[in-house]
Parts: sequence; structure tokens; C-alpha cells
Amino acid sequence: MARVVVDVMLKPEILDPQGQAVANALPRLGVSDVASVRIGRRVEIEFEGEADVERAREIADKLLANPVIEDYQVKIEEQAS
Amino acid sequence: MARVVVDVMLKPEILDPQGQAVANALPRLGVSDVASVRIGRRVEIEFEGEADVERAREIADKLLANPVIEDYQVKIEEQAS
Repeated sequence: MARVVVDVMLKPEILDPQGQAVANALPRLGVSDVASVRIGRRVEIEFEGEADVERAREIADKLLANPVIEDYQVKIEEQAS
Repeated sequence: MARVVVDVMLKPEILDPQGQAVANALPRLGVSDVASVRIGRRVEIEFEGEADVERAREIADKLLANPVIEDYQVKIEEQAS
């Protein structure tokens, strides 16, 4: 088993209301040194056998990310277990 | 500016219908070697000045993760830009 992780984030120029809501709540927790919070998706794809980055990229293109508003990064994750 | 990333995932024993839906769609794309797909949240916290992992952990506990059903991991991210 091998795990490939796809991180899908809104493009920097796209407004992220969910992250903004968290950022706005921080002063009430006494946190004042945070400049911004952005929230995206982390997708863990578990392959039977070898990790297949090209395949994961294809899955991200077709199913996971909206290329108009989102960027994604694909990486192989070393597994402890 | 320093970035701390909080990855929030459902605990392994909790059903993930969103990931399941993606996994179920894969055979239609001709992908048959994926054992499972899990979808969680990736939160990027941008600190003014130093990255503060302890602070990020506190934010995760109070705002980002539901400890009943979710686990999270906090890490400092090296930034290219």
C-alpha cells in the first residue's frame, strides 16, 4: 500500500470566506499575530501496490479540483504504519 | 511571515462518504488500483513573524477540528515564496 496526497487549495486571488471566518474569530481567542487563514481540501489516495503520481494527477484533474478556482499539489507520503 | 499547516482528517474508524463517493467513481475513469480515498481539510495559517506551532495547536483544538470524529496534525511549512 502506498499513499499519495493531493492538496487542493483555492487560488490565492480567490476569496476564501471559510478561512476568513476562522481568521475573524481568532482575536476572540486572544490570537493577534495571524495574518491569514486559508482552508482547502486534503485528499489521501491509497494505492494497492505502488504509488502512482501520474494517476493521482489524472484523478485530481477529473474529480478533485476545479481548475478555474483551485490549484492542487500531488505528493507521495511516507507511511509510518 | 511563516506558515503553519493543520491537516484535519476524519479518524480512521469514521466513515467518509465524500471520499467513498470519489473512490466509487474511479472505476469509470479506468482506475482500478485504488484501495481507498479519504478527504479532509488542509488549513494554512500565516503568522506575522515566527511560526507558532503551539498557538496553531490551540487554534486547531478550539476552532478547526472536532476531537470526537477528527484527528489533526500540525506542521511548519517551508515557503518558497
